[in-house]
Amino acid sequence: MNIKYADRMQKIKPSPIRALMHLVQQPGVISFAGGWPAPESLPMEELKEISKRVIANYGAAALQYSATEGYRPLLEVIAKRMNKFGIDVTADNVMITSGSQQLLDFVGKLFINEGDVVLCESPSYIGALGAFAGYCPKFVDVKMDEDGMNMEHLEECIKANPNAKFIYTIPDFQNPTGRSMSIEKRKTIVALSEKYNIPVVEDNPYYELRFEGERIPPIKSFDKTGMVIYFGSFSKTFCPGLRVGWVCCDPEIRSKFILIKQGADLHTSMLSQLFVYEFLTSYDFDKHVETIKHIYLKRRNAMVDTLEELLPEGFTCTRPQGGMFTWVKLREGLNSEEVFHKTVEQKVAFVPGDAFFPNGGDTNHIRLNYGTMTEAKIIEGITRFANVIKTL
Amino acid sequence: MNIKYADRMQKIKPSPIRALMHLVQQPGVISFAGGWPAPESLPMEELKEISKRVIANYGAAALQYSATEGYRPLLEVIAKRMNKFGIDVTADNVMITSGSQQLLDFVGKLFINEGDVVLCESPSYIGALGAFAGYCPKFVDVKMDEDGMNMEHLEECIKANPNAKFIYTIPDFQNPTGRSMSIEKRKTIVALSEKYNIPVVEDNPYYELRFEGERIPPIKSFDKTGMVIYFGSFSKTFCPGLRVGWVCCDPEIRSKFILIKQGADLHTSMLSQLFVYEFLTSYDFDKHVETIKHIYLKRRNAMVDTLEELLPEGFTCTRPQGGMFTWVKLREGLNSEEVFHKTVEQKVAFVPGDAFFPNGGDTNHIRLNYGTMTEAKIIEGITRFANVIKTL
Repeated sequence: MNIKYADRMQKIKPSPIRALMHLVQQPGVISFAGGWPAPESLPMEELKEISKRVIANYGAAALQYSATEGYRPLLEVIAKRMNKFGIDVTADNVMITSGSQQLLDFVGKLFINEGDVVLCESPSYIGALGAFAGYCPKFVDVKMDEDGMNMEHLEECIKANPNAKFIYTIPDFQNPTGRSMSIEKRKTIVALSEKYNIPVVEDNPYYELRFEGERIPPIKSFDKTGMVIYFGSFSKTFCPGLRVGWVCCDPEIRSKFILIKQGADLHTSMLSQLFVYEFLTSYDFDKHVETIKHIYLKRRNAMVDTLEELLPEGFTCTRPQGGMFTWVKLREGLNSEEVFHKTVEQKVAFVPGDAFFPNGGDTNHIRLNYGTMTEAKIIEGITRFANVIKTL
Repeated sequence: MNIKYADRMQKIKPSPIRALMHLVQQPGVISFAGGWPAPESLPMEELKEISKRVIANYGAAALQYSATEGYRPLLEVIAKRMNKFGIDVTADNVMITSGSQQLLDFVGKLFINEGDVVLCESPSYIGALGAFAGYCPKFVDVKMDEDGMNMEHLEECIKANPNAKFIYTIPDFQNPTGRSMSIEKRKTIVALSEKYNIPVVEDNPYYELRFEGERIPPIKSFDKTGMVIYFGSFSKTFCPGLRVGWVCCDPEIRSKFILIKQGADLHTSMLSQLFVYEFLTSYDFDKHVETIKHIYLKRRNAMVDTLEELLPEGFTCTRPQGGMFTWVKLREGLNSEEVFHKTVEQKVAFVPGDAFFPNGGDTNHIRLNYGTMTEAKIIEGITRFANVIKTL
C-alpha cells in the first residue's frame, strides 16, 4: 500500500500531549498535562435527573436529524447569556458546534488559503495551531505582555502582513499562559481589526471561570461592525464529553459556518444539545459556575503557592485569576523537554512549552494544569517537581 | 464589513435540499425530499431505559473528555459486527465519527489537493459531493448501470486520470438511485483499486437495510491489501440525532483519520457513543433492524407500486431491494426543477436530480424517499404527484 495523501497531511501532526500520553498515563503519575476540568465539577446528580427525563420529554426530537445551526431554544438561551456579558446579539448570531475545537477547524476552512497569514499570540493554544495547520497558513507570532497581546507589535505585524486573514486570541486566562488581556487592549484590538479589515477570532472557553479580580468584558462586546467572532464552550463550565460549543458572530459569517457545518457533520448530537439546554434552563447555572470557580481558586492557590515556595531562583510562574493553567518559565539553560523526561521518572507530568509557540523554538517554558487534581495531589506533585528541579 | 474568505468558500454551496426547505416544510406538504429514517423505527422504549441508567452506570466517563478514536468497547462491538459482514478486522481498524458525514469531510481532507481527481458514481450522494467540494477537487463522473458503477467506464476514467485520489461509491441501495453493485463488480473494483493504486471509499449507511433479495458482501470484504475504506452509520439503523458513525480501514489510514479528528472535534459525544453501545449490547440489534426493514419494505411497495400504476408512459423508477430511495426518470422533455415547483404547489415535495450529478447537467430525474412517510401518506402523495404529471 503506497497511498498518495493530500500535501496538507504533512502539516497535521500529533499534538505533543497525545505523543506523551503513554508516559503521562502510567499508573501513579500525577498529571498536570491535560486540559481536563475537575472531575468534582461535573454536576452528577443533576445530570442523572436530566438523563432520566430527556427521552421521555423530547421523544423523537432528541433522536432525529435536526437543524445544522443547532436547537433553536438552546441558541436563544446562549444569546441571552451573551447579552449578560455585554454582547448585543440574538439567536440568529449563534450556531452550536461539536465543541469549540470544531470552530477552530471551521475558521481555518473559512479563511485560510495555503500560505495566508494568521496572527497568533505567542504562545497560543496547541489545538488551535493544530487545527489551523491543516489549512497550511503562515503563522506570525505576536508578542505577549503580562496583560495580553502586545498591541504595538500586533500593529507592526499587520503592517508587515496587510493581507493577514485573522487575529487569533484567547483573551481570558489564556491557554497556556493563564494571562488575560486588559480592557484597553480589548478596545484597541477591535479598533485595529476595523482599521485594517482583519477579523478577530476570540476563543473564550474560560471566560466564566474568573475566580479573582474584576470581570473584563469580552472583546466581542466592543465590536460594533461584526469583525469579532466569539467562540464559547460548555466543556469547562459543564461537561466536555458532550462536545457542545458555540460561535457568536455576524449573521453573514454565521451563514458561512452553517454551510461548513453541513458538510462537516450535519449537526451536533441532539442528545448532547438537550442535556445542555436542560441544565441551563432547569438548574442554576450561575451557582454551578460559582462552585467550579471555588474549586479552581483553591487549586490555583495550592499550585502557585507551592511553586513560589519551592522553586529556586530563576524560575517564575503566572498567577492566573481564572481558568486552569499556569505557565512556568524555567531557569535559563534548562530544557523543557529534558525536564519533562526527568520529572516523569518521578511520576509527575506536564506539557513542555515549545509546541505552544506557533513557530516553535522555545525550550524554556512548561504548562501546568491545576484544574484536574486535588489540592493534596497538586502539593505532592509540585513538591516532586521541585525536587527534580533541584537536582538539575 | 468586507471580509476576505478562503477561495474554497466559492465551492461550498447550500445543498439544494436545504435551499428548498422553506417550500418543503410548509404545513400539509407530503415530503419525499429528506433522508430521514422512519420515525416509527426509533426504539423509544429502549432509549428511555438506556437514558434512565446511562449517567448512573458510567458516571464521569460519560461526561469527560475521551479518546479521539472512540470508546474502546464500542469499537470492539463494531469490529465484531464487521466480522459478521465478512470483513476481517479488529477494534484497531475502527474509529468513531460524528456521523458518517464527518468521514466525507475527513476523506476530502486526507486525500484532496486542489484540482485532484475524485472518481464518483454519477449520480452520487449530494452530501458527499458537498463535503469533497470544500477541498476543490475535479469530479470525474463514472457511469452507472442497473447493477452499479460501470467497471469498463471506471477503468477508462482511471486510465485517463491515473493520479485520481480515490473512487467514491455507495454500493448498497445507493443514494439517490436505490441501486446496488453486483458481487462481480465489487470484486472488480477491488482489483482495479489494487492494480492502479487508488483507494476505494465504500460509503455504506444502508448496508443492513436489505429487505429483499440476497445480501451481497461489502466491497471491503474482498479487500486484502487495505485499499478499501468502509464507512458505516447508526443514523439509518438506530438514531440519526446521536451523530454516530464509524470508519473501518487499514491502521495506517486510521492513524491519519485520528489526527484529523483531533483537530476537527477531539472526539464524538461520549453520551451519544454510550447510547449506541448500550443499545448494541443490551438489546437485540438484529431484531431491531428486522423491524425497520419490514417498515421500509411495505413503504417501498406502497411507493413503487403506486408509481408504476399511476405514472404515464415514458416514466421509469427503480425498485430498490433495501434502503429508502427510489430514482424516477421523467419523460423526455420534462424539467425536474419545473416539475418540483408544480408539484410543491400541490403540496408534494421531492429533490430534483441535478444536484446529485457531480458535474450537474441533468434535468430529467428526481429522488423520492419512501422511508419517512406512512404508506397512506405515500399513496396520497404519489397520487397527487401523478395528477400533476398528467397536466404537464
